[in-house]
Amino acid sequence: MARFSFQILAEEGRARTGRILTPHGSIETPAYIPVATRGAVKSLSPLDLAGLSIQALITNAYHLHLHPGIDLIHHMGGLHRFMGWEKPLLIDSGGFQVLSLGLAKEKGGGKVSALSSEKGERKRVYGAKPGKSLIRVSEDGVEFISYRDGSRHCFTPEQVVQSGQDLGADIIMVLDECTSPFHNFEETQAAMERTHRWAERSLAKFPNPSSQGQALFGIVQGGAFQELRETSARFLAKHPFNGFAIGGFLGSSKREMIQVLNWTIPHLPRAKPRHFLGIGMVEDIFEMVAQGIDFFDCVAPTRLAATGTFLVKNKPHFRLRILNEAFKNDPRPIAEDCPCPTCRGHSRAFLRHLFLTKEPLAVHLAAVHNLYFMESLMAEIRRTVAQGKFESFKNNWLAEEK
Amino acid sequence: MARFSFQILAEEGRARTGRILTPHGSIETPAYIPVATRGAVKSLSPLDLAGLSIQALITNAYHLHLHPGIDLIHHMGGLHRFMGWEKPLLIDSGGFQVLSLGLAKEKGGGKVSALSSEKGERKRVYGAKPGKSLIRVSEDGVEFISYRDGSRHCFTPEQVVQSGQDLGADIIMVLDECTSPFHNFEETQAAMERTHRWAERSLAKFPNPSSQGQALFGIVQGGAFQELRETSARFLAKHPFNGFAIGGFLGSSKREMIQVLNWTIPHLPRAKPRHFLGIGMVEDIFEMVAQGIDFFDCVAPTRLAATGTFLVKNKPHFRLRILNEAFKNDPRPIAEDCPCPTCRGHSRAFLRHLFLTKEPLAVHLAAVHNLYFMESLMAEIRRTVAQGKFESFKNNWLAEEK
Repeated sequence: MARFSFQILAEEGRARTGRILTPHGSIETPAYIPVATRGAVKSLSPLDLAGLSIQALITNAYHLHLHPGIDLIHHMGGLHRFMGWEKPLLIDSGGFQVLSLGLAKEKGGGKVSALSSEKGERKRVYGAKPGKSLIRVSEDGVEFISYRDGSRHCFTPEQVVQSGQDLGADIIMVLDECTSPFHNFEETQAAMERTHRWAERSLAKFPNPSSQGQALFGIVQGGAFQELRETSARFLAKHPFNGFAIGGFLGSSKREMIQVLNWTIPHLPRAKPRHFLGIGMVEDIFEMVAQGIDFFDCVAPTRLAATGTFLVKNKPHFRLRILNEAFKNDPRPIAEDCPCPTCRGHSRAFLRHLFLTKEPLAVHLAAVHNLYFMESLMAEIRRTVAQGKFESFKNNWLAEEK
Repeated sequence: MARFSFQILAEEGRARTGRILTPHGSIETPAYIPVATRGAVKSLSPLDLAGLSIQALITNAYHLHLHPGIDLIHHMGGLHRFMGWEKPLLIDSGGFQVLSLGLAKEKGGGKVSALSSEKGERKRVYGAKPGKSLIRVSEDGVEFISYRDGSRHCFTPEQVVQSGQDLGADIIMVLDECTSPFHNFEETQAAMERTHRWAERSLAKFPNPSSQGQALFGIVQGGAFQELRETSARFLAKHPFNGFAIGGFLGSSKREMIQVLNWTIPHLPRAKPRHFLGIGMVEDIFEMVAQGIDFFDCVAPTRLAATGTFLVKNKPHFRLRILNEAFKNDPRPIAEDCPCPTCRGHSRAFLRHLFLTKEPLAVHLAAVHNLYFMESLMAEIRRTVAQGKFESFKNNWLAEEK
C-alpha cells in the first residue's frame, strides 16, 4: 500500500502546486476538501461526488465518536468502506467542537454561534446554555457531555490518533486546544503550549502497529498573536509530522487572517503540505493559495447551497441568491458557461421555484453546482500556478467580483 | 410529432402488458409513475430518475398553478423544459386537492389527513381548520383560496384542459369532483354527474389549435357504490377520451378497492389505457394489474423513503424500517440481490446512521432504492404478463410477504 508523500510540482512566489499521495490515491494541490462531518456530504452521494471530480473528504472524529461510534465503524471495515468512499479521507479531531462546547459555558451559546459561523460550524452547540458546562479540559485530555444523550465522553491525544488509525483515515489531525477572541495572550499561550504537549504525545503513539501508511498532521495554534504563531510553527516544524494544519482564531478580518498565515507559513518546512482548517470562502482562497496553503476544508459551499446561494464569478462575494425576485422568470442557467449538471439541466426560474416550494431537490442541485464551482476553480488555480500565471489569475478574479 | 396511442402486446386474464406512445416517448405498461407534484420528485434529480429507468412522471396542475404559475412555465418553454425532463409527463387536475380543501371545511383537518393519507396526500391541507372554508364548488368550476398567500383562484374544466395544453403535458387529466367516505349515495351521485358534465366540457375544448398530440383522460367517479361506478364507467366509455383514470373514494379496505376496480374496468373499452390515481402500495400493485390497470401513480415510495422505510421483498408489507436497532451494525445492503446504487454502495448500518443523524443524504439514498425497487418490480410484472406467468408471479410475491 502506498505510503503518504508530498511532491511540489511548481511554485510561483509562495504559492505552489503539487501532489499528495495517500494509501487511497492522490490529491492534486491546491485542493478544496468538502466536509463530510458525520460521513456524508450534505445532500450529495459518493457517486455524485465522484461525478464532480472531488478528490478527498474530511470527517470529524468528535461527531463520529458520538454517532455511530468509532468501534462500530472499525468493525464495519473502516471509514472508507462505511461511507462508500474510496478516495482519500482526512479526519479532524474535534478540537474546534471542543472550543465551541467550552465557550458555551463561558460566554453563552449566542456568541459562540456568531464566532463559530466563521469556521462554518454554526449550530454545533446543541442545547448549550450560558453557565452550563458541557466540557472540561485537563492536561490529560478533554471530557465532554454528549449533546445527543447527555452521556459522558473523554478524548485524549492518544485516543484521537488511535481512532484515526482504527478508522483508516489517510490524514489524521492531532487533538488541539482551540482558542477564541475571548482568550487573552496568556490564555492563548497556555492553550498553545498544551497543544504542543498533546502534539508530542500524539507522535509518540504514531505510527502504531496497525498503521497503513497514514499521515499525522500537527496543528499550529497561537490565535491572532504574531509571537505565538511563530513559536507554534517553529515548535511543530521540528517534529516529524507528515504535514501541518493551521487552526484556531485567525483574527477578525480577512486582512488579519492573511497576516496570521504570513507569520506562520515561513516557519513551516517547505517540503511538507499545509492544510487550512475550516476556511474557504471564495474571496479567501486566492490569498490562502498565495500564502502557500496546499489544501483546505470548508462547509460554506454546501451550507450556502442549503440557503439558495450559488457560487458564481461576477457577483459580489461570488454569490447569487436565487430567492431574488429578479430570477422569477429568468430562463438562463446559474452561470452561462458552467457545464455542471445543474446548469446544463435547469434555469434560474426553476431553481428559484424549487427553493420557494422547499423541494428537497433544490438543495441537492445547488450543492452540485457549488462543489463543481469549487473543484473547477481549484483546477484552474493549479493550472495557473504551474504556468506561473497565478498572480494575474488572482487579480483578475478579485477585480471581477462586482 | 408522434401522437398519443396505446398498443396491447399481451394479455393474461384481465392483466395486460402494452405500450403507450406519447409525443415525448413511450411508456411500457403496466407502469409505476413517480409523483413530481411541483415539478420535482422528492430528493431525486432528472438525472437520478433517468439512471433508475423511470419512464414518466406525473405533476399536479393545482400545485403548479399556485406556484410558480401556469403562465410562467408556459413562457419558459413548457413543463418538460422547465423541469429538465424529456420523457412523458402526466398532469393531474387537482380534483383530489379540491376534495381535501372541501373536507377541511366540513370535517376538520384531522379527518382529512387520515383519509387523504390513503392517496398519499397527507399534509396537503395546509392551515385548514374545521369550519373555515377554503373552497366553493359550483357548476362552473372550483373557487379556492391559496394555502400559500390567501389569494383567490378559480379552476374550470376548460381552464384545466387549457393549462395542460399550455404546459405541454402528454397526458392531461380532466377536472373532477372527488368524494369521500363522508359523502352518502346522493351526494356521491351528484358529484359524479357534475364530473360527467365537466368531462364533456373538457372534451369540447380538446384538442385545441395548440395541441401537440397530447391525450385527454376522463376520470371515473362514483365512490364505493357499484351502481355509480358502473354508470360512470359506461358514461365515460361512450366519449372519445384517449384513456381513463379511476379516482375518488375506493372503499375502506383492499378488498373494497379491488371490488371498485372489478365493477369499473369491464365497462371501459379494452383498447384504451387505464390509470389508477394515487394508489400503489406494493401489496396493491398485483391486484390492480390483475384487474387490468395499465399505469398508476403514488407518492408512497418517496414518502416512505423520507421516514427511513425501504421497500423489500420478504418483509411484512414489503417494508424494512432502517431505524430498527437490529440494523445498528448490520454490514449487509438493504437487499442482498439489489443492484441499485444504494445497495451496491452502502450497508444498513451506514443508512441507519444517516437517518439517525438526520443527514439529507439519507432520504436521497432511500428514494433511489425505493424507485429502483418499483421500476424493477414493474419490469418483472411486464415480463411475466407477456409470458402468461403473471398469476403465479403474483401468488409467489404475496405468499413471500412474511
